[in-house]
Amino acid sequence: MNYEPARLQQMANAVRALSMDAVQAANSGHPGMPMGMADVATLLWTEFLKHDPEDTHWADRDRFVLSAGHGSMLIYSLLHLSGYAHPTIDDIRNFRQLGGPCAGHPENFLLDGVECTTGPLGQGLAMAVGMAMAERHLNAVFGNELVDHRTWVVAGDGCLMEGINHEAIGLAGNLQLNRLVVLWDDNNITIDGSTDLSTCEDIPARYRAAGWTTLECEGHDFGDIRRALGEATLADRPVLVRCRTVIGKGAPNKQGTSATHGSPLGDDEVAAARETLGWNHPAFEVPADILSDWREGAKTRATEHADWDDRLAASPNRAEFERRMAGDLPEGKGIADEFASWLSGDQKVATRKASEMVLSVLTAAIPDLIGGSADLTGSNNTKTASTEPFTKNNYAGRYVYYGIREFGMAAAINGMALHGGVIPYGGTFLIFSDYARNAIRLAALQLARSIFVLTHDSIGLGEDGPTHQPVEQVMSLRLIPNLNVFRPADIIETAECWQLALQHKGTPSALCLTRQGLPQLRHEGEMLSAKGAYRLHAAQAERKVVIVATGSEVALAMECAKRLESEGVGADVVSMPCMELFEAQDASYRAELLPADALKVSIEAGSTLGWERYVGQDGLTIGLDRFGASAPAEDLFDRFGFTADKIVPQIMNKISK
Amino acid sequence: MNYEPARLQQMANAVRALSMDAVQAANSGHPGMPMGMADVATLLWTEFLKHDPEDTHWADRDRFVLSAGHGSMLIYSLLHLSGYAHPTIDDIRNFRQLGGPCAGHPENFLLDGVECTTGPLGQGLAMAVGMAMAERHLNAVFGNELVDHRTWVVAGDGCLMEGINHEAIGLAGNLQLNRLVVLWDDNNITIDGSTDLSTCEDIPARYRAAGWTTLECEGHDFGDIRRALGEATLADRPVLVRCRTVIGKGAPNKQGTSATHGSPLGDDEVAAARETLGWNHPAFEVPADILSDWREGAKTRATEHADWDDRLAASPNRAEFERRMAGDLPEGKGIADEFASWLSGDQKVATRKASEMVLSVLTAAIPDLIGGSADLTGSNNTKTASTEPFTKNNYAGRYVYYGIREFGMAAAINGMALHGGVIPYGGTFLIFSDYARNAIRLAALQLARSIFVLTHDSIGLGEDGPTHQPVEQVMSLRLIPNLNVFRPADIIETAECWQLALQHKGTPSALCLTRQGLPQLRHEGEMLSAKGAYRLHAAQAERKVVIVATGSEVALAMECAKRLESEGVGADVVSMPCMELFEAQDASYRAELLPADALKVSIEAGSTLGWERYVGQDGLTIGLDRFGASAPAEDLFDRFGFTADKIVPQIMNKISK
Repeated sequence: MNYEPARLQQMANAVRALSMDAVQAANSGHPGMPMGMADVATLLWTEFLKHDPEDTHWADRDRFVLSAGHGSMLIYSLLHLSGYAHPTIDDIRNFRQLGGPCAGHPENFLLDGVECTTGPLGQGLAMAVGMAMAERHLNAVFGNELVDHRTWVVAGDGCLMEGINHEAIGLAGNLQLNRLVVLWDDNNITIDGSTDLSTCEDIPARYRAAGWTTLECEGHDFGDIRRALGEATLADRPVLVRCRTVIGKGAPNKQGTSATHGSPLGDDEVAAARETLGWNHPAFEVPADILSDWREGAKTRATEHADWDDRLAASPNRAEFERRMAGDLPEGKGIADEFASWLSGDQKVATRKASEMVLSVLTAAIPDLIGGSADLTGSNNTKTASTEPFTKNNYAGRYVYYGIREFGMAAAINGMALHGGVIPYGGTFLIFSDYARNAIRLAALQLARSIFVLTHDSIGLGEDGPTHQPVEQVMSLRLIPNLNVFRPADIIETAECWQLALQHKGTPSALCLTRQGLPQLRHEGEMLSAKGAYRLHAAQAERKVVIVATGSEVALAMECAKRLESEGVGADVVSMPCMELFEAQDASYRAELLPADALKVSIEAGSTLGWERYVGQDGLTIGLDRFGASAPAEDLFDRFGFTADKIVPQIMNKISK
Repeated sequence: MNYEPARLQQMANAVRALSMDAVQAANSGHPGMPMGMADVATLLWTEFLKHDPEDTHWADRDRFVLSAGHGSMLIYSLLHLSGYAHPTIDDIRNFRQLGGPCAGHPENFLLDGVECTTGPLGQGLAMAVGMAMAERHLNAVFGNELVDHRTWVVAGDGCLMEGINHEAIGLAGNLQLNRLVVLWDDNNITIDGSTDLSTCEDIPARYRAAGWTTLECEGHDFGDIRRALGEATLADRPVLVRCRTVIGKGAPNKQGTSATHGSPLGDDEVAAARETLGWNHPAFEVPADILSDWREGAKTRATEHADWDDRLAASPNRAEFERRMAGDLPEGKGIADEFASWLSGDQKVATRKASEMVLSVLTAAIPDLIGGSADLTGSNNTKTASTEPFTKNNYAGRYVYYGIREFGMAAAINGMALHGGVIPYGGTFLIFSDYARNAIRLAALQLARSIFVLTHDSIGLGEDGPTHQPVEQVMSLRLIPNLNVFRPADIIETAECWQLALQHKGTPSALCLTRQGLPQLRHEGEMLSAKGAYRLHAAQAERKVVIVATGSEVALAMECAKRLESEGVGADVVSMPCMELFEAQDASYRAELLPADALKVSIEAGSTLGWERYVGQDGLTIGLDRFGASAPAEDLFDRFGFTADKIVPQIMNKISK
């Protein structure tokens, strides 16, 4: 639709009223941003955004990302006014209350139309880059007739000041993602006050330096907004639109100040704002004519949906497209043949190399897989013959050179996973999961099938030294809810863990892989890793010891068990490639594996804190609770006690007591 | 000195030879960067760098930071050739070996002259920003006669591509830190290949957009390097010098390619490089005349040291300056008076507010303290009346508006702590420790007294919801070696924890503080937190239960104990404000607090994994192993089981078994 400014003003004021009233009712929240961006958002949602409130999962809808997630009342207002089934007006009344869908920050798992969870600043925009990548890739694969949409982002100064912004826009600029438009809410205010306190940056100049097109508009002039958004859709690069706005616009005494940023306006100022805005309606009431304008505007582009449905119905690619958007894996034998062949063989490879071998099969069989690395391709072993580079000249490619941008990569992976139609994975050293940590957390919170390939997973990294050697990272990742942390022991477990990562649609995975070569330990069994842990070796002599180990330390546990057996001490070895999946097993399985009547010993070349859960206070935890050092791996394993020579006497000593 | 180009060339080739030979001997390492930057570094170290190899701790020395730490052989070569006591030539022969000081990446705790540990990309430059801040602050306090030096950084494309670079240069630009010079090794190569693969950025344009001066030079033309470095010293802003170099310069068949980046050149190419460079000397041998030139060059500015010594001796501020540079706290009664007054009072405040009250006293008493926040000043309660803003117009200020830059802030704090003379602290929400996590780790590795104020430390944050509610963060920080993680329960423990943070010179601290108000639990005792945990309440009835809790859950533990006692079940309450300090106590103290003959229960509103260390497999771990939700705090604590009503029955049930 193309409404007159006066009508648009009333429609935008509905956003302002709902926002300030909901924040006031909750006595908590951020009214300033929704009130400041109400005009821009109203024009975008009624004239430009391609969406259909009646089918919120329409695959070819534009994605709208409120990167400045603290302004959540903006999107709740937009969704409600546009006629989405939720949030209802009661949901909005219930803003920030237990059990309601209108959380303090928008959560993708609570409301359709919220494309991703935002709030941690900078990540919304960075996920939008991933969405725009997925769109271009699927466009290249399925053509304009099935995939041709934009990703719109509303971002504030915080999103632009965070480091991840640099990574995200560098990636988008180099890939020339011209379907990505960022609307920068340029209001000169942060929580602490004027932006002058902390920055003097010429933001558009920086975006241009990164290969973006930059535009500007007066954020309270509908004609100017319309012009700028129109120009944005014509660009051949990603676009930053600087929207000059007044934070808290409409609150006569507080607008333009940080007082409106993160606190309710207060009853008096809300009343004064009603006066200023000419909004003479009770709280949470939107007059029928304004609501009607909104509902009509929301359908501006919904008609395109019917045409798209026709094209999909007629497309020879329909089944494949629907499979991919549903996130289902393709039918076929998967890696069954190779798995059988590996079981019968004897591969002595690093698990990062094993991962490459598995990926070679998987990427050939599953076109959904899009890989990449944060400039460690040869070390992470993430590239395969099936994955050509994904570049500005070849969006059909399936391998992303992410550059030295771990956080940006992880967020882009999340964005791709949330967009759907692709299954993204990306590699870096495990230690640099620290850089990407909050994006890994957001993958877990958002139920996204993001797969993080984290190699060089212990002091086995060797010479690069303590800055590059993970110590606390494996255990620390295990603390993140809804994240499966895999640490496979050999090629067989690596193959199993990759399959599990793919099968868990609503859970991200971290695959922790070795730099160093490992012997093959398994020659039988199928998908034993699915239970998280299993008995790899059963005691020959009377069982007195159960050693539980992960990854590279499973072979060491086997060696210890052999020595113990030779001294007449029976020892089970339990391999635990995934603690989270083991936790999900029933009590009897867990007790049977880790029985009360044996000394339990954990071996993992990392933090011991946490292992008492399985070995008890009377058990032995063999690990590393200090930083590593620079030396060849074998020297380090010896120095830090990861040899049978050093472990077996401790076990013997313990059982002799 | 001002050597002729031909002599400089030989001196630079000594760097190249040592670098390629050491990497070859170790069969591991990064020859490309040292060989590419040898010319720039040689000129810098012999003509510009203010340092004294005979007094590596001279307070007014220039700081040199090799941000591209993988090129560690560059700094090892420079230190050795300049005549530092270490590394010796044998140390260099021992590159990357166990026990040697020449680690894979430079470690500040292994070698004088290594100002900070680098390797995790981007952080060296970001720490250098902190060093330059400390320098300007101390200059403002002590004057040009005692403090007037520069911070020089060598950075590669990786350092510049990382997100933290954006945060660091934004901070430096806004603060106009003109004593900071970054030498960018512009060689067009990353590990994966040409920089074109991942970036199209106009880097100098970005730096200018952030308020920097940018210069350029041909990195293999000594005259041009000299000109650029000279101009850099005249700038009124921080300076980026683009040094156009050839990676692996001198290796005739591999230079200019990623093959030289992270792998030994190989014997043949090393031999060919010797030919190309005209370096006809055996490995690890530097001819006497070249060494002599180097030693002479290194003393170029050492003469200034004697003048400085004279000025210090004559200065009325000498004692104070020396105290501060030694990192000692000022003499005085500290917070003794206020502590006594708080003990006798009854403050019901959030621990973030208690922290502000403590800081008000500490910042008045200790001029070394420089605070700040990543744009959450009013929420972190980090600003006090004694700390005026630190701005480009007032470097004497002691409060930094870091902007929305958590990682950059944490790294700058590390840089300040490593520079010395100041004790930095900075605040953000605990959840955003995720963003800064690797800098917190580097603080711990580097033995830096960095203090991180992390507020809103649980679901008690309330309405902002799961993206902002820490769950795994407290336990996850505890996994980092050599980091003291404090979670005080009331104003008394908050005061104790702040004192402990200041007293531990070689250990960084994370103070986890509540948003919500907490009752005062302690009215007696002195510094009980020093042992990490202590008995806050002793069972009245026969002891059957010991509840161990931290922070906001200690009051809940007290309530549970009260209920248990009323049912005739004796219950101790142990407050554990610092797990790390408790771990350091002797076994008898630990066993006395957490005896084997009682049911042990942990209560902490976060991950339970890890608590089995103290409560055993038979104990109860009350915590939160899922993401939170958006609602008022009290609703969340009830929903997730943090009430005596929900906990006491679990305890009764357990002891009845």
